[in-house]
Amino acid sequence: MTEENILERVRKRAAIPLNSRLIVGIGDDCAVYRPQGSNEDLLITTDMLLEGAHFKRGTHAAEEVGHKVLARGLSDIAAMGGRPMVCLLSLAVPRWATPGWIDRCFGGLRKLSRRTGTALAGGDLARSDTFASDIVVIGSVPKGAALLRSGARVGDGVYISGRLGGSALGLRTRRGRAWRRHLRPEARLELGEFLRRRLHATAAMDLSDGLSLDLRRLCLASKVSAEIDAPPVYPGASLEDALHGGEDYELLFTAAPGSRVPAKFGELPLTRIGVIRRGQPGRVLLGGRALAPLGYDHFKRS
Amino acid sequence: MTEENILERVRKRAAIPLNSRLIVGIGDDCAVYRPQGSNEDLLITTDMLLEGAHFKRGTHAAEEVGHKVLARGLSDIAAMGGRPMVCLLSLAVPRWATPGWIDRCFGGLRKLSRRTGTALAGGDLARSDTFASDIVVIGSVPKGAALLRSGARVGDGVYISGRLGGSALGLRTRRGRAWRRHLRPEARLELGEFLRRRLHATAAMDLSDGLSLDLRRLCLASKVSAEIDAPPVYPGASLEDALHGGEDYELLFTAAPGSRVPAKFGELPLTRIGVIRRGQPGRVLLGGRALAPLGYDHFKRS
Repeated sequence: MTEENILERVRKRAAIPLNSRLIVGIGDDCAVYRPQGSNEDLLITTDMLLEGAHFKRGTHAAEEVGHKVLARGLSDIAAMGGRPMVCLLSLAVPRWATPGWIDRCFGGLRKLSRRTGTALAGGDLARSDTFASDIVVIGSVPKGAALLRSGARVGDGVYISGRLGGSALGLRTRRGRAWRRHLRPEARLELGEFLRRRLHATAAMDLSDGLSLDLRRLCLASKVSAEIDAPPVYPGASLEDALHGGEDYELLFTAAPGSRVPAKFGELPLTRIGVIRRGQPGRVLLGGRALAPLGYDHFKRS
Repeated sequence: MTEENILERVRKRAAIPLNSRLIVGIGDDCAVYRPQGSNEDLLITTDMLLEGAHFKRGTHAAEEVGHKVLARGLSDIAAMGGRPMVCLLSLAVPRWATPGWIDRCFGGLRKLSRRTGTALAGGDLARSDTFASDIVVIGSVPKGAALLRSGARVGDGVYISGRLGGSALGLRTRRGRAWRRHLRPEARLELGEFLRRRLHATAAMDLSDGLSLDLRRLCLASKVSAEIDAPPVYPGASLEDALHGGEDYELLFTAAPGSRVPAKFGELPLTRIGVIRRGQPGRVLLGGRALAPLGYDHFKRS
């Protein structure tokens, strides 16, 4: 079983019709809900962080855990061009966590929530043997303006922000800037808003599971294929890290042929890495050869 | 540490100002978000179900787990008089779960989501050693009409639906109707809507952690105390089960003195068990004596 197998089973068997207010359901970075009579659409995303599967107690400080819990959810909002409004946190508190640890963990989350204007609105608490969290983030986007995975068209350019593979490098070496990058990912919220408002990107998603797997997902959703060159690689990382490493939380997006994509957004490079083609949906060619979707899959690896 | 200690720490330290669209934050059954220009308010709730803490693999069938995951979230929507619209499910799939088990679990959730019109809109998946789920339910309520815990006023009658202690009895005896009641709780959605639309209840919440603890929470939120008599007891259950047993998922509500509360809502009895009084906030008297809040607390018991 792979994660996609399970998702496909759920999607097919769920067969719950989208209700009139649910504009986007399973399969994008966020679900999109259209409140009656409102000029905003709401983006809804959930994201788990589990001890063991996503981090190890010994390697992540409490504050970094708290930061990461929220940053991962915010990244989904960024990917759709939204502004985060509120979050809810479900937390299974492990028996090993001291009151001090819990405070520092909430401290890390709070700092990021303040900086991004995301109000902590509630959640759930329970006891557990290991740490488990699930963050819900609700974001806002003007009606009909959310950036979807499904909007890429033949001829569009394929772009990424930043340099890829830093998080994978950090996880391997556990030192320097790459390690800090792994521990404290930054959601590209300003960039997401720029892509939606100024650039009118045709599709976008965040790079959480590796370029090879995530670009495949974008192509599947848009029913297109893509031809790319090697992406910019994080200093010290390998091409493998950049192609298949997860948790970079950069944005992957497509833009119509005439779009003027700047070389930088602030300090962050924006790089054209390829083009959208007709062809087998989901197929990605790198330098003319098929790129296997080797990115992170919880189920394949287990 | 008790659950309330932790919540109080989080609430104080969070100190994230409610933003203009967040009408109700931490401390009620759901958060309430007011979309710009809309005539509906959105209710948002999250609820975890963890193997070990909330159920045991050997005692709950996969379908019952799926049902319970959603029913607990729906109960929070019912408590505020809302209509469930969409849900998202985060699921840590244990290594022991076969594809068949996962399908049956989703089957149980799907059946309830169809019956209640709650579209499954997304979620998250990961691998884990034990089953862990977190359900997010988004509900809709007319603007400003959500039933809050904080609305009880001195002189209001205190009411409950149904008979209490059935779930605790079932958990102890593991047989008969009480056990089925524990395994397959029903959210009181129609009743919640009736309380809001017809009865104009002043406050409401669902009974998930036991009457003694939950009524104390309602009184704390409303800054009042309450005097009650013994509530109706589920056949075969003890008064202790009814006062302190969790997971009945009946509704606790208050209504202004002149309200005509029917004796039954469909088949479900509605019983006046007491009255709201001035006095120490959160204090509950049963037959004139202080009732200790012995209901379920994940943290006290561990």
